[in-house]
Amino acid sequence: MPKVSAERLEATRRRVLDGARQAFAAHGYEGATVKVLEETTGLSRGAIFHHFPDKDALFLALAQEDADEVAAVVDEAGLVEAMRRLKDKDAGWLGVQLEVARRLRTDPDFRSGWERHLRGIARATQARLARQRDAGVVRRDVPVETLAAYLSLVYDGLVAHLATGMPLAHLDGVLDLVEQAVRETPNTTIGSH
Amino acid sequence: MPKVSAERLEATRRRVLDGARQAFAAHGYEGATVKVLEETTGLSRGAIFHHFPDKDALFLALAQEDADEVAAVVDEAGLVEAMRRLKDKDAGWLGVQLEVARRLRTDPDFRSGWERHLRGIARATQARLARQRDAGVVRRDVPVETLAAYLSLVYDGLVAHLATGMPLAHLDGVLDLVEQAVRETPNTTIGSH
Repeated sequence: MPKVSAERLEATRRRVLDGARQAFAAHGYEGATVKVLEETTGLSRGAIFHHFPDKDALFLALAQEDADEVAAVVDEAGLVEAMRRLKDKDAGWLGVQLEVARRLRTDPDFRSGWERHLRGIARATQARLARQRDAGVVRRDVPVETLAAYLSLVYDGLVAHLATGMPLAHLDGVLDLVEQAVRETPNTTIGSH
Repeated sequence: MPKVSAERLEATRRRVLDGARQAFAAHGYEGATVKVLEETTGLSRGAIFHHFPDKDALFLALAQEDADEVAAVVDEAGLVEAMRRLKDKDAGWLGVQLEVARRLRTDPDFRSGWERHLRGIARATQARLARQRDAGVVRRDVPVETLAAYLSLVYDGLVAHLATGMPLAHLDGVLDLVEQAVRETPNTTIGSH
């Protein structure tokens, strides 16, 4: 029954990824030893490394999954919506983001490989801003590249802040300000028509 | 000659702090061993620990110095100006900020002690925003607490981004957007008068 078998493989792969995320969140990348991974996935090292050649491949699969998810949300609903959804992300998700940030700082090889994903998110953000600008929603007096860089900076700030575990007061009001800053306001509409 | 002696002590203290900053930037907090500190300060461990009881006290002195500096810039010129000045900060300065962020996440004792400094910066930001609002510069339709939380989030994002060493495109335009978002616009003035 190859169909069941493929489903089972996918289910195990999912279980490895979810368990690895827990392990990275609780222990950091270095601290997530094979023994820890066995505990959090409930699988043997043989089963884990049947799906991923090594721990690094496992981490990269998680990070790529997250980057793809952010790009998809951006494409569909914009980076401010991706920020609103960050509120519901758990420590595992934030832990992967922080590990990506750490590697961007410390590992030039990782950085040159990862730039592709950053460009993917930046492109999705700019494309959506351009569409929204054409629809009259986004302001026209600032280049979409600048607006995209602005949103990306706030996004990074939100990830960094949430990862500290400190309460973020006034988050809804803050994100309204962020959204407003890229929108066409009645004022600029008057000015530009 | 007690005056010369006090000056010399202060000069050595400064040299310890500057060397320690280099050490933390290049090796991280854990990697900045006593041997590394001796190299970057050009002083013996005896001289170093004459000024600070231990490495942790040395790190805290640097972090507090930075927090005080940010609070002073905010008080005088606002958090957006503090952001503009981040461009000129070196890896040593950013490294201390990242280590503070890491400890906020991982060390509850550090966190409860450090909250005092975060509140100091938040208070300075809110006080300045309130003064600027009374002067008609800052918008009145959003509470200063929300504006302060917004600026603080962008500040965190900027620190996180600069620490990756990735180029930040359009930074001046981005900071103009940030500043504009807290300002009273001709539009809101028309609405509120």
